[in-house]
Amino acid sequence: MSIYLHDIPLPEAQARLKQALQDADLWRVLGMESIPLDENVLGRVTAEPIWAKISSPHYHASAMDGFAVRAINTNGALPSKPITLEIGPEAHYVDTGDPLPGWANAVIPIENVESLDELGSLATEIREPASIRIRASVAPWSHVRPLGEDIVATQLVLPAGHILRPVDLGAIAAAGHQEIKVARKPKVAILPTGTELVPIGSQLKAGDILEYNSLVLAAQIKSMGGEATRYPITKDDFDLICQRVQEAAQAHDLILLNAGSSAGAEDFSSKVVEKLGILLVHGVAVRPGHPVILGLINRNSSTENRKLNNLAPDPSDLIPIIGVPGYPVSAALTIDIFVEPLIADWLGRRPNQLPTEIATLTRKIVSPPGDDDYIRVAVGKVGDKLLAAPLSRGAGVITSLVQADGLALIPRGTQGFEAGEQVKVHLYRSKAEIEKTIFCIGSHDLTLDLMSQFLAEQGRRLASANVGSQGGLIALRRGEAHLAGSHLLNPETGEYNISSIRQYMPNIPVKVVALVGRDQGLMVKRGNPKGIKSLEDLTRSEIQFVNRQRGAGTRVLLDYHLKLMTVAPERIVGYSQEEYTHLGVAAAIASGRADCGLGIAAAAQALDLEFIPLFQERYDLVIPKQFAEADLLAPLFGLLAESHFREAVSQLPGYDVSVMGTIILED
Amino acid sequence: MSIYLHDIPLPEAQARLKQALQDADLWRVLGMESIPLDENVLGRVTAEPIWAKISSPHYHASAMDGFAVRAINTNGALPSKPITLEIGPEAHYVDTGDPLPGWANAVIPIENVESLDELGSLATEIREPASIRIRASVAPWSHVRPLGEDIVATQLVLPAGHILRPVDLGAIAAAGHQEIKVARKPKVAILPTGTELVPIGSQLKAGDILEYNSLVLAAQIKSMGGEATRYPITKDDFDLICQRVQEAAQAHDLILLNAGSSAGAEDFSSKVVEKLGILLVHGVAVRPGHPVILGLINRNSSTENRKLNNLAPDPSDLIPIIGVPGYPVSAALTIDIFVEPLIADWLGRRPNQLPTEIATLTRKIVSPPGDDDYIRVAVGKVGDKLLAAPLSRGAGVITSLVQADGLALIPRGTQGFEAGEQVKVHLYRSKAEIEKTIFCIGSHDLTLDLMSQFLAEQGRRLASANVGSQGGLIALRRGEAHLAGSHLLNPETGEYNISSIRQYMPNIPVKVVALVGRDQGLMVKRGNPKGIKSLEDLTRSEIQFVNRQRGAGTRVLLDYHLKLMTVAPERIVGYSQEEYTHLGVAAAIASGRADCGLGIAAAAQALDLEFIPLFQERYDLVIPKQFAEADLLAPLFGLLAESHFREAVSQLPGYDVSVMGTIILED
Repeated sequence: MSIYLHDIPLPEAQARLKQALQDADLWRVLGMESIPLDENVLGRVTAEPIWAKISSPHYHASAMDGFAVRAINTNGALPSKPITLEIGPEAHYVDTGDPLPGWANAVIPIENVESLDELGSLATEIREPASIRIRASVAPWSHVRPLGEDIVATQLVLPAGHILRPVDLGAIAAAGHQEIKVARKPKVAILPTGTELVPIGSQLKAGDILEYNSLVLAAQIKSMGGEATRYPITKDDFDLICQRVQEAAQAHDLILLNAGSSAGAEDFSSKVVEKLGILLVHGVAVRPGHPVILGLINRNSSTENRKLNNLAPDPSDLIPIIGVPGYPVSAALTIDIFVEPLIADWLGRRPNQLPTEIATLTRKIVSPPGDDDYIRVAVGKVGDKLLAAPLSRGAGVITSLVQADGLALIPRGTQGFEAGEQVKVHLYRSKAEIEKTIFCIGSHDLTLDLMSQFLAEQGRRLASANVGSQGGLIALRRGEAHLAGSHLLNPETGEYNISSIRQYMPNIPVKVVALVGRDQGLMVKRGNPKGIKSLEDLTRSEIQFVNRQRGAGTRVLLDYHLKLMTVAPERIVGYSQEEYTHLGVAAAIASGRADCGLGIAAAAQALDLEFIPLFQERYDLVIPKQFAEADLLAPLFGLLAESHFREAVSQLPGYDVSVMGTIILED
Repeated sequence: MSIYLHDIPLPEAQARLKQALQDADLWRVLGMESIPLDENVLGRVTAEPIWAKISSPHYHASAMDGFAVRAINTNGALPSKPITLEIGPEAHYVDTGDPLPGWANAVIPIENVESLDELGSLATEIREPASIRIRASVAPWSHVRPLGEDIVATQLVLPAGHILRPVDLGAIAAAGHQEIKVARKPKVAILPTGTELVPIGSQLKAGDILEYNSLVLAAQIKSMGGEATRYPITKDDFDLICQRVQEAAQAHDLILLNAGSSAGAEDFSSKVVEKLGILLVHGVAVRPGHPVILGLINRNSSTENRKLNNLAPDPSDLIPIIGVPGYPVSAALTIDIFVEPLIADWLGRRPNQLPTEIATLTRKIVSPPGDDDYIRVAVGKVGDKLLAAPLSRGAGVITSLVQADGLALIPRGTQGFEAGEQVKVHLYRSKAEIEKTIFCIGSHDLTLDLMSQFLAEQGRRLASANVGSQGGLIALRRGEAHLAGSHLLNPETGEYNISSIRQYMPNIPVKVVALVGRDQGLMVKRGNPKGIKSLEDLTRSEIQFVNRQRGAGTRVLLDYHLKLMTVAPERIVGYSQEEYTHLGVAAAIASGRADCGLGIAAAAQALDLEFIPLFQERYDLVIPKQFAEADLLAPLFGLLAESHFREAVSQLPGYDVSVMGTIILED
């Protein structure tokens, strides 16, 4: 059996909505309001062109402190042949901004006027000598700001549809306006629905889902120039939802019905729209965001009655309703894709357009060919290459949107891209910010979170991707990161990292700096219910283990010791169950998905697990020489020598900071 | 005599202020406040790192609608060999988001489950069959969102110093926070001073200056994340200013004392600072913005008393004060240069950084070698070249900031740049916006203002520079604009534009489209006090004429007729007095600076002048073929055929729209 969503292509869905809104005369500026010209108009959109009512300056103004003169009277003045001008009829003191006397047509700056004998000084206090002497002529209109220099009455000051910035307010005031007509803010109702939802701050039990979509949506609407109303959670009761929607429709321009997830049993949105109005689209071929619903409903409650009487909806008071998917990433992108252009149109401004850049994809992406697929990516400049590293694709992973520097679009008709291909990225951050991003890849360590915080204070952003120690070195070889965290044991010599660096990054000069010494050990549930004490216990059949991914230093460490003990990995239940971070392993144990895993003390403490220390290992930063010497990384080296950072790290359990900053290798 | 401003280099001025603030322990986040997590936190800056209090999801959640199972029970299921699972102990229906039963470790999506005979249907309504049948095995943890997939308790969610965006609010909520600690907003007092100032909305007389700087400054502070208080205008009374400053100091973190202009007699700011505290800098070698004053004063009124008693200011309660120059452009740039980094530091965020691009300068710029000179430029992409066209450099011309797409910095030690040189431009607008900018150059016409408005509605920005018809054609030849407005008469044939195009733009294929026919005539004061009737009158010695610049079509027209009449230009008083626009000519007459000038009827009407029509001329748009066919200009051609635009133009006096859109030439 299957539940069909009528996934139509994105452009068609957008076109259907636009057409329906045009038919209902709702694809236009909604209305305007006149508001006083003060700093609160910032960010509002002009609803009419602004024409100048007055000129600025509105008189001929002196542009300097000095004397207003008739230019013709200065003709012939030379250093050797000064001319004397009588104060009153021939020269008149003016401050900057003062109007010129009617007879004057130029200003001589005070510093070009000579003190006469009887005068002594022309300082500010003494402005009324009998006459002044000059030794150079001036051209007509010198040092004068003529009437209309800035603004001429009747000229266009700003077009309609302009988003007001601070300087605009000055120009509007200078043009003689005290009020300004702006587009009224579209009013958007946000209705979260779902019996499983609980408000922020609730005590959580399994199955509860924190309702924070309405918060994100309201903030999005606000940042787009609209006004959001957040309704309380409505449980999955069809009639109740209909009633709330109908209520909200009275006082709003748009309803966002944030429904349960996907095609689930609790998804009433499409039925609500069908009952109250016209369902335009149910499902769009876009990822994330498939289960989007687009429709129109009547403002008043008559739609249903009209239907009962087989009458079409009244076109004169329709409003749009959008069924927003429940997953937070889908919800946020739905607003960007469908609501932003609508708000833009209602405000009369241009839709937002993210700047784009071409970047090199760091790993392969597979995408369903029927969909427009938006991939969140971290973007950084490594050497000369702008790189796009795909982040988690889970629609429930809101942190992937937080960490995203941009979106790479894999258009409909494409099955994906290979690593190394060029993709177009729509950027959330400025190029300047991206150029201050340090791309760190490799093994994960909690100190990287701390480092991220300390670096942020120094104007650097640390973007870290966790692909294991070995993956990090390979990424460095490919030029895909500035540095890698690594703790790769050489099983032959017991030495860390160097032989692996030579193996995976041949001929690349590097600098290797020790970050920390750290304990590795087994994490188990508090109370150690299965009595695990050492690696030997892992082979017990009732012990469910959780492993790190291939290439991770912790995995190498495990394999090394298993080999020493001649234990075949196959004997360990869960050996093939992989997690990508220490905290991932800890979470698996905390949740009961596994009984134990190898990892670091800090991760165990974070999730309140018990930790059985087994080995100490060194965690190094591996930095290709070309980046080690770059300005970008200078603050990072600074950190390693900084007592605040050391102290913060030493607070974490199981860390030894005595090695921090030691240079292990420098080519 | 001269008035010295101690113009120190910009970096030194900035360093002095920073050092003084560091000494007073004022170069740090001012404070933090805990606020509820709602959409009003948007744009605030995190004052602390945000660590996750809970994991998200906080339980193993189904990622699909389907049946939770133990993966091991599905082993061996094949299309030809289905497995039946009993509802209850072996399979449990879950909606997306539901928690997995403790015994389950995978979910089979409902569409992969077969309806059993006794079942009929597995539609949403009927969820409780006795058993289900499957024909494929599932791997452990398939279609499950494991605990911590998005956020693991204790992980860093956001660093301190982060400006909050909509998606961040979701992540913070998901991490278990209901409140958030943000940097408190710096409080900035803005005190406009000057006896010449009048509030917005006043009836103006000569010498009055509209006080709108405080409005722009307040909006700037707001957009930077601060909180501004606008004080009423204080007249130039030293004690009153001191008193107001002292009052404002009590409740603010920064005082902006917006003083009279330059070194004028009414500039009390430096004396105020000297009296109340420590004067750090008086005058900075930056343009615009020379007369900036930087200082520190005591919050309480004791500073003066301390001074009287020869005591140093109390370092524990100093606050910075900035004397902001009076000219609006200088004032706004002073805020960007000195206040923005301070607000950024007080909020703990990074200073704003405008994106930069390298652009080709369209004309020579001369700059005093001792100054850092900020030149406002219009930026547009013409063909492959990014061009920067310098705008008015007058510090009083606020419209130059409104029209600016960016700032080109001419650094200290440079005397300027030649036309065609590459300059670094700090951009106010996104590249996308700049790529939608139509660069129009040449002769000015009022219809261009209307066109600008109509084009804005269609997503195009018209940036027009007025250099006269001939200058426009030359600019087109140099590839510096997309089109030029031209009305160049061929004095031999009476034909418009074509021979000039061939002369100034040889070998460049063009499309020439008629925009309007328009009346040219003499503008005179209402009542025509000097009884001017025709060009002959211009030679009367008591008639002061105002001319257009060399190369302007109106100038050519004048010269043509003067030649026909064999009148030597030298005989016309004011022939060499040049204005660059029709409105400039009109303003000169309205203000009494001249008695008459040649121009168009619309300009005369705009400034309530009388108009004596003499000739009709054709005003064409000249468009190089390569741009005529580009998408960028398509909306412009659309306009010429649009009745709304025609109508709007025909409302202007002296315009004939019958020729609009006629193709005059197409190579």
